[in-house]
Amino acid sequence: MVEVEVIAIGNELLLGDVLDTNSNWLCQRVTGLGGRVRRVVMVGDDLKAIAIEIQDALERKSDLIITTGGLGPTADDITLKAVAEATDHPLGVNLEALKMVKRRYEELAQEGYIADSTLTPSRRKMTHLPQGAAPIFNPVGTAPACTFRVEDTTLISLPGVPEELMGIWEGPLQPLLREIFGEGYYQEKMVFVDCKDESLLAPILKKMTGAHPQVYIKSRAKKFGPEVKIKITLSSAGRDRDEVEGAINEALKDLTRSLGSSGLAVETIEES
Amino acid sequence: MVEVEVIAIGNELLLGDVLDTNSNWLCQRVTGLGGRVRRVVMVGDDLKAIAIEIQDALERKSDLIITTGGLGPTADDITLKAVAEATDHPLGVNLEALKMVKRRYEELAQEGYIADSTLTPSRRKMTHLPQGAAPIFNPVGTAPACTFRVEDTTLISLPGVPEELMGIWEGPLQPLLREIFGEGYYQEKMVFVDCKDESLLAPILKKMTGAHPQVYIKSRAKKFGPEVKIKITLSSAGRDRDEVEGAINEALKDLTRSLGSSGLAVETIEES
Repeated sequence: MVEVEVIAIGNELLLGDVLDTNSNWLCQRVTGLGGRVRRVVMVGDDLKAIAIEIQDALERKSDLIITTGGLGPTADDITLKAVAEATDHPLGVNLEALKMVKRRYEELAQEGYIADSTLTPSRRKMTHLPQGAAPIFNPVGTAPACTFRVEDTTLISLPGVPEELMGIWEGPLQPLLREIFGEGYYQEKMVFVDCKDESLLAPILKKMTGAHPQVYIKSRAKKFGPEVKIKITLSSAGRDRDEVEGAINEALKDLTRSLGSSGLAVETIEES
Repeated sequence: MVEVEVIAIGNELLLGDVLDTNSNWLCQRVTGLGGRVRRVVMVGDDLKAIAIEIQDALERKSDLIITTGGLGPTADDITLKAVAEATDHPLGVNLEALKMVKRRYEELAQEGYIADSTLTPSRRKMTHLPQGAAPIFNPVGTAPACTFRVEDTTLISLPGVPEELMGIWEGPLQPLLREIFGEGYYQEKMVFVDCKDESLLAPILKKMTGAHPQVYIKSRAKKFGPEVKIKITLSSAGRDRDEVEGAINEALKDLTRSLGSSGLAVETIEES
């Protein structure tokens, strides 16, 4: 399974000024591709702190490290500088990135959005990538994303503006993602149980988890109007669709039987 | 300044099934108390992974480490086991926690919410704390929170259900928080600038950041209906209110002057 780490960068996250929805969105995408996010970390706009997180993630040999934020024109946008330090590949002008940024500012000037398309030092900053990195076109904003390969790990740096991050992921990044994740498959089924006390379920779920290691089983209390029900989620991911579906169905059958023999009724089953 | 780390625990976070709003809420609270969150990390329900995060945070000598999630009755709720391993203080029944959990299930039975208040193994699990830890009453749910002191670091373990986490923080945890944060003070002012291109602001903000190290200065493009404006936030925290306000006012005066001499107009100033 493809192991992924996410590093979300920005003081505004740690100040609580901005809720980090990017990481959640990326977790959903990775899960949907059959991969597994093993860790998400949020750090501030601090060169050393970011570089340490990248180095640590590289040492853990994850298949994919995704950074978000810190690609823009301002001085506190230092993600690629941190990638450069962590991987010992100095920053330099990337000609492909230069073309992308130049064209983008010319378009913005033509559309009357800005007065002047000159590549000022702040704008030029976005064309500096670590040596050996490749830019990825940003269809929404100005700063290109950046991909970098270190041994068996791919590092992808995405902008922090959600629309830009999503636009790059869903568009120009797709070929690389297909290369990394292959044809992964993920399935999730939800069971609702009329049981007011989650602690009654604990022994049943423990047995299930032991018996079905391929399936992730989780319970959570959920409100339905004035009623509380327990939602049990069973999910599994892998390369093979039949295998994934088989494992979930097996676990579901077993769970339904166990709940029944404890006098608990399964209400509905939902699939997503 | 009080340095804080947050460790958010739960497979559902990494699967993207649940958006981690707890960490954002805690970041806001810590910032408001004049403290600084230096790092937030999300890990799954994995004993070793959680213990490593706690150990690393202890080694960084943060003043306060907050864990969220993994305190409940199910087998995958293993946060306190990880605290026990990381600090080398084995789990055992805590009599105060036992009293809290027992009373809570008796209340739930009296209210007709559950049939039986017997302390089953799953319920009893919530009374096991690391040796030397203290329980904190949970006014909303069943699992007590837990505080633990390791040298100069306080470790607080809160439940993952947002209502419980908030209820404990705003209620029974307040005396300990006042002890840790003292009478901290935080101020934030926002300036809106009519400027379509953030890159024009970069050199001005860079100069400001260098000249006012006590003040955190951040720009972000914001939509106001069809218009886009740049919002610049200046914030500062510290023990002394006059000092904090003085630093921000100084930076604001300087910023207004610099923007003006670049032909950029400050539109409004907001305070929070």
